[in-house]
Amino acid sequence: MNAFNVHEHLQSLGLQAKAASALMAKAPAAAKNKALRTLALLLRDNQAELAPANAADIERATAAGLSAPMVDRLKLTPQVIETVAQGCDQLAAMPDSIGEIIGMKQQPSGIRVGQMRVPIGVFGMIYESRPNVTIEAASLAIKSGNAAILRGGSEAIESNRALARLVTEALRAAELPVDAVQLVQTTDREAVGQLIAMPEFVDVIIPRGGKGLIERISREAKVPVIKHLDGNCHVFVDATAELEMALKIVDNAKTQKYSPCNAAEGLLVAAPIAASFLPAIGAIFAAKGVEMRCDAAAAAILRADGRLAELGARIVDAAESDWYEEYLAAVISIKVVEGIDAAIGHINRYSSHHTDAIVTRDHVHAQRFLREVDSASVIVNASTRFADGFEFGLGAEIGISTDKFHARGPVGIEGLTSLKYVVLGQGEVRS
Amino acid sequence: MNAFNVHEHLQSLGLQAKAASALMAKAPAAAKNKALRTLALLLRDNQAELAPANAADIERATAAGLSAPMVDRLKLTPQVIETVAQGCDQLAAMPDSIGEIIGMKQQPSGIRVGQMRVPIGVFGMIYESRPNVTIEAASLAIKSGNAAILRGGSEAIESNRALARLVTEALRAAELPVDAVQLVQTTDREAVGQLIAMPEFVDVIIPRGGKGLIERISREAKVPVIKHLDGNCHVFVDATAELEMALKIVDNAKTQKYSPCNAAEGLLVAAPIAASFLPAIGAIFAAKGVEMRCDAAAAAILRADGRLAELGARIVDAAESDWYEEYLAAVISIKVVEGIDAAIGHINRYSSHHTDAIVTRDHVHAQRFLREVDSASVIVNASTRFADGFEFGLGAEIGISTDKFHARGPVGIEGLTSLKYVVLGQGEVRS
Repeated sequence: MNAFNVHEHLQSLGLQAKAASALMAKAPAAAKNKALRTLALLLRDNQAELAPANAADIERATAAGLSAPMVDRLKLTPQVIETVAQGCDQLAAMPDSIGEIIGMKQQPSGIRVGQMRVPIGVFGMIYESRPNVTIEAASLAIKSGNAAILRGGSEAIESNRALARLVTEALRAAELPVDAVQLVQTTDREAVGQLIAMPEFVDVIIPRGGKGLIERISREAKVPVIKHLDGNCHVFVDATAELEMALKIVDNAKTQKYSPCNAAEGLLVAAPIAASFLPAIGAIFAAKGVEMRCDAAAAAILRADGRLAELGARIVDAAESDWYEEYLAAVISIKVVEGIDAAIGHINRYSSHHTDAIVTRDHVHAQRFLREVDSASVIVNASTRFADGFEFGLGAEIGISTDKFHARGPVGIEGLTSLKYVVLGQGEVRS
Repeated sequence: MNAFNVHEHLQSLGLQAKAASALMAKAPAAAKNKALRTLALLLRDNQAELAPANAADIERATAAGLSAPMVDRLKLTPQVIETVAQGCDQLAAMPDSIGEIIGMKQQPSGIRVGQMRVPIGVFGMIYESRPNVTIEAASLAIKSGNAAILRGGSEAIESNRALARLVTEALRAAELPVDAVQLVQTTDREAVGQLIAMPEFVDVIIPRGGKGLIERISREAKVPVIKHLDGNCHVFVDATAELEMALKIVDNAKTQKYSPCNAAEGLLVAAPIAASFLPAIGAIFAAKGVEMRCDAAAAAILRADGRLAELGARIVDAAESDWYEEYLAAVISIKVVEGIDAAIGHINRYSSHHTDAIVTRDHVHAQRFLREVDSASVIVNASTRFADGFEFGLGAEIGISTDKFHARGPVGIEGLTSLKYVVLGQGEVRS
């Protein structure tokens, strides 16, 4: 398609999405749930038809020399399909919060005032590689009564088209507008620029992908963006932490998986417990090949431990830039801090305001950490890896926000809604 | 001040606000309430000192040839001061919602997850003429635990400086950071451009003023803006409306005051009731000198009524542009619609999504209007003039939002806060 056609295509998607969003906003819960259950069935029943489309994407990606992990993320294995189908069924089983009215109270004038939860309208989703995101976004749009325009990665275009056809079929079976979920049909990169600059049609953009993509979108978007750029998450081991619990949490936060945004990238240890805790966690990290970027105090303690040297521990002097770093790898920064004040100060200065945890027995410290650490998710005595829509009980997750405006932290159905005021009177007027 | 100094001044305000916001976020409710009560006392006790500053502004404005209503808005009369002082006392008496934790529930993993209400950080307020806004914004900043940078109109600079000194004194008396509320000290218009482009210091901008100012700010701001551009509000008189109630509500919505954003600018009447309702409301409008811009059907009914002609009713044929218009004057557009579908269709097409009301006895129509009209405030059987923070029970109002993102409708304390996730565990890790 040439540039002119890209513009026309996006305009037409926008117009159709806007029209569909008005119908979705008043769609009965039963119809939305029927669409979700039908979609789950179609996914399970049409694996044979999805396979060739997915194979074409994988073949093209392999030929283009994409890395093995990138190609892996493209794969619609039976397990991946079953997982997204289950997600649809779970969303169908959840209560429908659209139309709920909260806080209805009578005012001195006699009017009763409350707030009704309504869909936000149209969201645009921009993502890369993993085609299962197509189903996650579609199912969240359906449940939340929004319309969505999906822009997947060019490497997954065949898979995404095949999946989008199933979504259309499910919408039609439930007598919902088929334009409620639309896939951008061109892989032209110009389409992204168009999608993020149509405030007349699109209410919010949700990008998922590399930092470069998200920065570009945030800079150029003409509508609000729900996003996080970095996950520079911390665990602070307080002086009163139970050693076993602290070891388990720090180990899990760092090493359970290296790539998620909620994995820990920084470890802060209170000075009084450093000499006992650091060698123990250092041994675990050494055994797992995790490089430790340490401040002087932490390095001194770790280097003084002969056992760590035997284990081949990689103890490196940290640079100032390490405190800002999101490694997404087998690397962690480590700093000994005087206590809770220094820990909160360090986190509020260097953290990406994503997820930060404290391990402590001290009630006052726990309360202060929760209140004063300025991050989307603050955690006492559990792994940072829990910061996730499913683990938080949201039922699903469309993304994670590190902004304070509108949605903060894992974003589920509620983040795709807004509250409008509803007023019930019996003829009251203003005097 | 030259441009360089404006930049330095704003940078320094931003830095100081950011630092103050961290202290305000953890300030005890007692200290914030003490500051508010002290401010109320200072306002009442220092009228003699406020008077000369206010007189200087009024003299300058009069000399500059500002209109009488503009000069009126500048005046800090004893009544204006008592009203803002009472507002401070009322805020002090309200419960403090900062730090409240909502929805704490245990998840299958064992962790308990809830959300804590925290201040948004720093807000910038840009406003014109009325110096009492300085106190309203300052008191909302204090109660909500935010820091604020206030940029009032140049015509009110002396009054605003005098009021800001009282705010500083009140903060100091309560041992709160005096930088929690700062006034931009220059009247250079460049300061507005700077204030809206400091995302490192300012989390949200709240403009109040003419449409031109707000459009410019929305276009150029590098941070979110809480705003409404227009208040093109409607009343729909349904076929089953009680005539007396409908007359009272439409009259009040249009004529109680012409200038507020929540005054009605459009009247829609269901066809079956048009012949009985329109002459009755027409007589009221004629008596009050309200010009009626009518579609053909409404004009025919009104012109057929001899009594209206005697009253000197101004019945004008509406142009398409009338349906979009926010008159803020003794003018109303009038259209006869077939029924609820046409009414909702008209409103969703032409309304500014601010406030729209229906007068009806029909339960199904009332429910549909509430659900389907896409406006920040939707009202059944009461005047649009109620769409206001005080009338809605918010205790105070920093502005009204017609956006769907974050805050919608009248914005009080809650709109100046965000919810962060808090997680309480007993050593849980992700498996």
